[in-house]
Amino acid sequence: MVDRILQGDTRAIAQAISLVENDTKESAGILHAIFPNTGGAYRIGITGPPGVGKSTLTNKLSGYYRINKLKVGIIAVDPTSPFTGGAILGDRIRMSDLETDEGVFIRSMASRGSLGGLSRKTKEAADILDAAGYDIILIETEGVGQSELDIINTVDTTIVVLVPESGDGIQAMKAGLMEIADLFVMNKADRPGSAQAAASIASVLEFHQRSTKDWHIPVVIAQANEGKGIDEVAAVIDRHRSYLHTSNGFIERRKSQLKLRIVELINEQMKSEFWTPGRTACLDRQIEKILTRSLTPYDAAKELFSQFKQR
Amino acid sequence: MVDRILQGDTRAIAQAISLVENDTKESAGILHAIFPNTGGAYRIGITGPPGVGKSTLTNKLSGYYRINKLKVGIIAVDPTSPFTGGAILGDRIRMSDLETDEGVFIRSMASRGSLGGLSRKTKEAADILDAAGYDIILIETEGVGQSELDIINTVDTTIVVLVPESGDGIQAMKAGLMEIADLFVMNKADRPGSAQAAASIASVLEFHQRSTKDWHIPVVIAQANEGKGIDEVAAVIDRHRSYLHTSNGFIERRKSQLKLRIVELINEQMKSEFWTPGRTACLDRQIEKILTRSLTPYDAAKELFSQFKQR
Repeated sequence: MVDRILQGDTRAIAQAISLVENDTKESAGILHAIFPNTGGAYRIGITGPPGVGKSTLTNKLSGYYRINKLKVGIIAVDPTSPFTGGAILGDRIRMSDLETDEGVFIRSMASRGSLGGLSRKTKEAADILDAAGYDIILIETEGVGQSELDIINTVDTTIVVLVPESGDGIQAMKAGLMEIADLFVMNKADRPGSAQAAASIASVLEFHQRSTKDWHIPVVIAQANEGKGIDEVAAVIDRHRSYLHTSNGFIERRKSQLKLRIVELINEQMKSEFWTPGRTACLDRQIEKILTRSLTPYDAAKELFSQFKQR
Repeated sequence: MVDRILQGDTRAIAQAISLVENDTKESAGILHAIFPNTGGAYRIGITGPPGVGKSTLTNKLSGYYRINKLKVGIIAVDPTSPFTGGAILGDRIRMSDLETDEGVFIRSMASRGSLGGLSRKTKEAADILDAAGYDIILIETEGVGQSELDIINTVDTTIVVLVPESGDGIQAMKAGLMEIADLFVMNKADRPGSAQAAASIASVLEFHQRSTKDWHIPVVIAQANEGKGIDEVAAVIDRHRSYLHTSNGFIERRKSQLKLRIVELINEQMKSEFWTPGRTACLDRQIEKILTRSLTPYDAAKELFSQFKQR
């Protein structure tokens, strides 16, 4: 399977990502084996609130890279509804024109209701595509909560997509968007207020320019569904890529990403060693006592932890 | 200090919350000591995207409970800007009419840039207020990412605040809002499209009613800044509280919250035992090898973990 992945066999790629998603034992071996062949792909994150057109932008950017003969891997992290139990594929359907293109590989990964480790799994799926020879990996994810931040931590360039209704620059700052964006896209530029909204983001960015070091975060106005602004977004990504390489930022980002990754692997292993059936049962007994206030959570945690240390 | 907290001394409460926020050693002892006196307060979470009027709703709801002579504690989890380094207090200023009321205690906690453990700290702050005799604890938090979900996991009733521009029912479902809301508030009802937006949420809820069991999630239309809809929101909270008590849901929620809490305590302890200066230095050396692909993250994690087990 490792050989087939390295040869770019899409079936093997799809199977390997499923193994990763289901947390099977084989996946660790595969990931370990392909790791030396990773690192060549450029990873781009696309995030923003629901309904801003992230999928459309991903679609059009892929088209741009395809014209330039680059192989594109797309990982779309979709929220899973607690009702349907699966990813909602509405947005994905619009990508169907790409699905017949052999130079594009599209994969949805469900976020909610996942067994955890989503950010690790996303990175591992990206590694598989990387090792398989995809030049560009686009990772699309909704919202900007902690789990999305963890996913975004895996990429080289982060695009935050907004629409005029997403709020002004102060709100974007409050939501922590300036912290993660390398580039803003003000999409749906045909809607009223887009120029003001973009200017508002830009002026808050301007005000705080010092802390973003040498990279001046641009705000690109786009209308992705019409293909407007796509070339400019791609040009800014290219510029950011050059910036990272000349400023040492590329290595620094990848270093901190690797650190996070090892910490995640260790945390997961810890969890599985800690929560034996015995300790899980002990926790259940403790909860009953805590409810009647005859035990505190602090003593309960201490008890479980000292059991673990004495094993 | 424990005695003063139990007597409702606001200075002691404020100091204790600071000890929790700064993760000092004293805080564990205080929390352990006050725990038997907790459990009496009703905890309400208020969440939603930036700019929907969460603070205003929190303010007005507090006013409502004050008329009913209940003591109200407010914990506002504010995003911290990476630029200012502190919570942005703009929204909080509007609460100043409550600040002179002795029956209201307001505390902001910064989210971004926190040293971690934010959800634990929020719960612990709520415990302090609970033990101090506050009847209602309102926890206000922005967005609906993982860390916000963890915070919301601490409450009995969760209110998701939206505005007509927040998107339709399908988008709310995609964002996972139906998963966490016990009650939706469509705020800023004077804006165009509010009735349609509320109806859209309601119809998606209707469609999926089965999975929400016996509790029919209401959508309340409000204009919090004018005080409109506040009585209805409070009435729905009351109804939800009765529902939880009659359906056994109250105990079930508190049980799973306690479980989460003990797991968090253990995870934090694990982390601090694991990341000794020696292992941190080892990780740094490993990263250099991983960058040149002469080591994989999987072997690196294995190496660190087996060191830990052999200690």
